[in-house]
Amino acid sequence: MPKDSKVIAANAAFYTAFSTGDFAGMERMWADDDAISCIHPGWPAIIGRATVIGSWRDILQNPERPQIVCAEPQVIVDGDSARVLCIEIVDGTALAAANHFRRVGDGWRLVHHQSSPIAQIVEQTHEEPSGQSRRFH
Amino acid sequence: MPKDSKVIAANAAFYTAFSTGDFAGMERMWADDDAISCIHPGWPAIIGRATVIGSWRDILQNPERPQIVCAEPQVIVDGDSARVLCIEIVDGTALAAANHFRRVGDGWRLVHHQSSPIAQIVEQTHEEPSGQSRRFH
Repeated sequence: MPKDSKVIAANAAFYTAFSTGDFAGMERMWADDDAISCIHPGWPAIIGRATVIGSWRDILQNPERPQIVCAEPQVIVDGDSARVLCIEIVDGTALAAANHFRRVGDGWRLVHHQSSPIAQIVEQTHEEPSGQSRRFH
Repeated sequence: MPKDSKVIAANAAFYTAFSTGDFAGMERMWADDDAISCIHPGWPAIIGRATVIGSWRDILQNPERPQIVCAEPQVIVDGDSARVLCIEIVDGTALAAANHFRRVGDGWRLVHHQSSPIAQIVEQTHEEPSGQSRRFH
């Protein structure tokens, strides 16, 4: 399996764990130490395994959590690091997400996840990046 | 200089380049290849040196860009990768930001930047993470 495919597979497993409420699967996706972090939409950063895994436990236990579809994943492999940039479609709203992985043995484990609202659905956006619909930083 | 301090210094240089409109300095902050990416607030991901550096050129050339203060930086060094998680105060609004670095020689170069709006100014937030003011993912 090409190295990109393994990263894409790890990324897909992350979203599958979310969709199915598979907390054990989600826990296994993350690197097993305190050098992990997460910025959920609207949250400040959280750091460390107990805090990050605890946040996912809360989210997966919530029966009202939305469905998320990961679209347009793009992989960057950079030595023992990799990241997947994708669009998350959450209840019809587009988020820009980055999932950062560390190579562990023959696979990849998450070390950081962050997703951010996109000002407009991508397909409807024709402004330049400096247009009014986007912030300047 | 401890390795954390070098990452903190690189992170501070990034914000100084932004504040002073120093495009050459900003350009030097980023790794010199196409494995770099950025998610500006409200934007989808952009990938590759020309696109990422071009976005910063546009931002720094804009005289109306806001001032940004980086607060509460927290460093995670993870082998040849490092990230700084911080709060960006942009015109009184708090953003949660992550700056991801790659070790290059004796220093650190940016490979990914992402900042996301926080639902409420942190100092005013006392709800649990699963409270109404935050999204569930």
